[in-house]
Amino acid sequence: MCGIVGVIGKADATQVLLNGLSKLEYRGYDSAGLYVNDGQGQDHLIKRVGRISALTAAVDGSVHGVMGIGHTRWATNGKPTVANAHPHVSSDERFYLVHNGVITNAAALRAKYLSNVAFASETDTEVVVQLVAAFARDGLAARAAFAKTLGLLEGSYAFALADRTDANHLYVAKNKSPLLIGKGEGFNVVASDALAMLKETDQFVELNDGELVTLTKDTIAITDAAGRPVDRAPITVKIDAGDAEKGPFPYYMLKEITEQPAVMRRLLSRYVDADAKPQFDAALLKALASADRLYIVAAGTSYHAGLVGQSLFEQLAGVPTQAALASEFGYHMPLLSAKPMFIFLTQSGETADIRQVLVNVKAAGYPTLTLTNVITSTLAREADYAVDLAAGPEIAVASTKAYTAQVAVEALLAAALGQFKQVPAAAKSDVAHALSLAAAGQQALIDQQAKLHALATALFAKTRNAFFIGRGTDYFVSLEAALKLKEISYVQAEGFAAGELKHGTIALIEQDTPVVAFITDPKTAARTRSNAEEVEARGAKVLRIAAASLAQPEDQLIVDDLPALLTPLLTIIPGQLLAYFTSLDRGYDVDRPRNLAKSVTVE
Amino acid sequence: MCGIVGVIGKADATQVLLNGLSKLEYRGYDSAGLYVNDGQGQDHLIKRVGRISALTAAVDGSVHGVMGIGHTRWATNGKPTVANAHPHVSSDERFYLVHNGVITNAAALRAKYLSNVAFASETDTEVVVQLVAAFARDGLAARAAFAKTLGLLEGSYAFALADRTDANHLYVAKNKSPLLIGKGEGFNVVASDALAMLKETDQFVELNDGELVTLTKDTIAITDAAGRPVDRAPITVKIDAGDAEKGPFPYYMLKEITEQPAVMRRLLSRYVDADAKPQFDAALLKALASADRLYIVAAGTSYHAGLVGQSLFEQLAGVPTQAALASEFGYHMPLLSAKPMFIFLTQSGETADIRQVLVNVKAAGYPTLTLTNVITSTLAREADYAVDLAAGPEIAVASTKAYTAQVAVEALLAAALGQFKQVPAAAKSDVAHALSLAAAGQQALIDQQAKLHALATALFAKTRNAFFIGRGTDYFVSLEAALKLKEISYVQAEGFAAGELKHGTIALIEQDTPVVAFITDPKTAARTRSNAEEVEARGAKVLRIAAASLAQPEDQLIVDDLPALLTPLLTIIPGQLLAYFTSLDRGYDVDRPRNLAKSVTVE
Repeated sequence: MCGIVGVIGKADATQVLLNGLSKLEYRGYDSAGLYVNDGQGQDHLIKRVGRISALTAAVDGSVHGVMGIGHTRWATNGKPTVANAHPHVSSDERFYLVHNGVITNAAALRAKYLSNVAFASETDTEVVVQLVAAFARDGLAARAAFAKTLGLLEGSYAFALADRTDANHLYVAKNKSPLLIGKGEGFNVVASDALAMLKETDQFVELNDGELVTLTKDTIAITDAAGRPVDRAPITVKIDAGDAEKGPFPYYMLKEITEQPAVMRRLLSRYVDADAKPQFDAALLKALASADRLYIVAAGTSYHAGLVGQSLFEQLAGVPTQAALASEFGYHMPLLSAKPMFIFLTQSGETADIRQVLVNVKAAGYPTLTLTNVITSTLAREADYAVDLAAGPEIAVASTKAYTAQVAVEALLAAALGQFKQVPAAAKSDVAHALSLAAAGQQALIDQQAKLHALATALFAKTRNAFFIGRGTDYFVSLEAALKLKEISYVQAEGFAAGELKHGTIALIEQDTPVVAFITDPKTAARTRSNAEEVEARGAKVLRIAAASLAQPEDQLIVDDLPALLTPLLTIIPGQLLAYFTSLDRGYDVDRPRNLAKSVTVE
Repeated sequence: MCGIVGVIGKADATQVLLNGLSKLEYRGYDSAGLYVNDGQGQDHLIKRVGRISALTAAVDGSVHGVMGIGHTRWATNGKPTVANAHPHVSSDERFYLVHNGVITNAAALRAKYLSNVAFASETDTEVVVQLVAAFARDGLAARAAFAKTLGLLEGSYAFALADRTDANHLYVAKNKSPLLIGKGEGFNVVASDALAMLKETDQFVELNDGELVTLTKDTIAITDAAGRPVDRAPITVKIDAGDAEKGPFPYYMLKEITEQPAVMRRLLSRYVDADAKPQFDAALLKALASADRLYIVAAGTSYHAGLVGQSLFEQLAGVPTQAALASEFGYHMPLLSAKPMFIFLTQSGETADIRQVLVNVKAAGYPTLTLTNVITSTLAREADYAVDLAAGPEIAVASTKAYTAQVAVEALLAAALGQFKQVPAAAKSDVAHALSLAAAGQQALIDQQAKLHALATALFAKTRNAFFIGRGTDYFVSLEAALKLKEISYVQAEGFAAGELKHGTIALIEQDTPVVAFITDPKTAARTRSNAEEVEARGAKVLRIAAASLAQPEDQLIVDDLPALLTPLLTIIPGQLLAYFTSLDRGYDVDRPRNLAKSVTVE
């Protein structure tokens, strides 16, 4: 949720931190702050509510440092105020701390150790920094005080800690929240996402849970939870920094929507061989083929991709498959089959709700696979198998290309599994051909932006609510299209199984309520059209989006024909663009909707 | 959706029809109409948009009849106008028809047979009555013309047909929509629900799909689809007509909410023996025990009860269980297990979306069970087993006591199955004791109506939207509580898994957005509280409803402790009452929300 940066050994530490924070801003932007120390007795703590730009404006030429830490916050508990912004400082003003995660026993620790300390904020983070200071006042060195504190904590954290009395050391630690060390020449950096520090280095050292690191400008000293030294070589992170730039687009979201046909083609070149057969690691296919039931665990947009995956794995690979919400699955697991396998869908690879499930099912000895867009992420590293979505960095908070990449990779993997298991449906399906048709069909829709803008304005300009309806895969797309509209335009949109609306929710239909109906499945097209007429009879304004072969004169947008299971690759494009233009019409910041963070690293 | 009545052989036919329609009004009330014929050359067709009261007001003392038909309509296609109201009349004004259902090939039939006939409405029903008239003009007798028409129809119907030239006969037919004949002394009646005609008779003849009936005042002549005579004795329908009266309550919904503790006790006396062991038909338990997976198929509120049932059957009876939306399951069935059994949850026993599933799975030879509040209903009759919810007639459109009865019966049945299978969890669970605690806990909540009214006013008086959150069973209750608020107060409420909200929908939280958090499960209470704080940090007004043993000072409403799987029996009571008082505050008709019908007999 939050973003963390740190640096030691750079003369322009302030600028390095601000650059890094601006790359992480999509992670959360209720408030931001930094602490820098010039090693010559001058230091600065600056915090602002709102965007990084507010922080940048507050930093004048006098704010120098050779080491420092920075933070951009998405409030989990405590309101977005300056007092609650990071870095937090101990009341003796010696220690400065930035934190991502949630400490669940903060109140108990405060009561036990800090009853006589005055607090400046309501945050769990301040409890941590006050503990470090208290143990230091008891005589421990900074690192030892930090280590003792870590030993007491329950919950999740990525920390960077600065000691104002010692500009030559920076301390970091991690448990269940992402954190990387970037190794430079004569300097080192810290970041919760490599993206933030790609300008400084491409050499990154990954950290495991429970590790504590002491950084100087030249050294990286890691110890594990038991205090034993750990030796770990850096890896090279290959992201074209240009991929993470907006270029000529007004918003990242529009850029990322536009990239989807290219992502389809990239996946074809990566996962399909010269004979148009999907190819994946044989060990992975063998593991999947041994499972008697697949559980797809995901959240948000990825969950909606998982619902499509449920049908794909059942129909192309003949294996019973169940998509589940990660936050529910973690604590209320259904009765599992005898030989389950778990598939985790996550754009960032850092979703805390999924991590919680992964830890439990790994402990139970079940095989795991992560499909993710960040192949160096925690969930990719910790699962038995990982498959790269290869969609390129997704910066806009509202996910677009990661969704279509997930659906496409699920289709390729399901087809490969079906072939491996010699399921007849898989032999007949030509997923590779369908994906190349999908790329062309997506482009045709992206080329209709003017029309989609006009439809968005006509339907959603002033509405307080909206409904998206469909059956089967059209239902799954309805859920995702509604979520897009919610996320960036704040319209209370709901996706519904078309036949279910009349069992209660139809009471909300009134004059001019917008309803979008997806009609791409010959088996249910007539029934969905009946449901559209039911809401029209109550005054709804209905936009019908139909497949070419099912088109009727009243349909306002036509998408190319595709096999029923793959139509989400097309129908979600108008879903995304309708949301984009509605947000634009309403004057919102498309890429950075209120309250939301890109990668949700708390439960 | 719609309600149908008919009568032949009563001097006060008009009054019989109006009485019957008033009992059926909850079925749909976009428009209503009747046709009566006095057998002496005088007849009347009267139709009005809106409530039955508008129709009653339009009927003056001159509207006499000895036979007639009546209808109350919930528009499926075609707007709610007088032209679209039933009865529909042929353009030669000979035949009058009321219809419940949807004819899917009406356009094709009109094009083929009726190209030269002038139409007065946009309805499928008019096509049917015009066909009868056309075939009669070709020389067929009325019954034969009707039979020929029925042979051409695709879709669902319950019909009552009157011929102005012959007041001694009334024709009715049924396919996939409910219809019953009531047998009197010197008269006969027709109704889509026995409730409508209980004042006239308690002897009812059930009809099967494809049957056609010719009624005179003394005879009931049934033929099957092949034209063969059918002999069928009437059954006695035992409903205390007083149960269906409001008594001292301002609305049926409040009456039905209040009845819930009594329903719990009634279920205990019916399904629990002297040793506090749940008892069900041994053949049913044997069938359930033979299944390797249960599929609970339902819609709307019943689906929410099915989600609770999913956990109950898994945990008390150790059988994997999957709840599914009926409208989706009918056309997009998952891969079934080797030995599935199907459980249908339906208050009315007439839900068309479920019927569609039942027909398919019976054809495939799978065992079926219906849990319903109307044990004489189609779905009760057609399933292999049926269990009575015994909640008494539920008249308010928004379901309340049927939901808690479903949860309670699922719990009893799951415990009985667990005992039958000797599952250890079932032996330990004391469902009977828990249900008697639930009855007392419900009463304690019902007694806090003044407090709940104040909370409803404070939270929902002016809001456009609202959220209900929880985890596990608290999540399932959140879905149901949100649906209640939607149905009768038109607030766009959504139920969410508490951990899922942050994956997108939290963007909708703004200053004073109402959020209700259910906190009854010790395993996840702390996490749900964190999620409540997340929305509070963004300005939400949060109402926390917690179990007594988990209560914190900030909790505004406390419910008694119950085993986690049964807490919905308590937590839904404030959900129901908050919705009730919000609807009352806004001045809506609580029992008859716009757009909704009580029993949804179209797909």
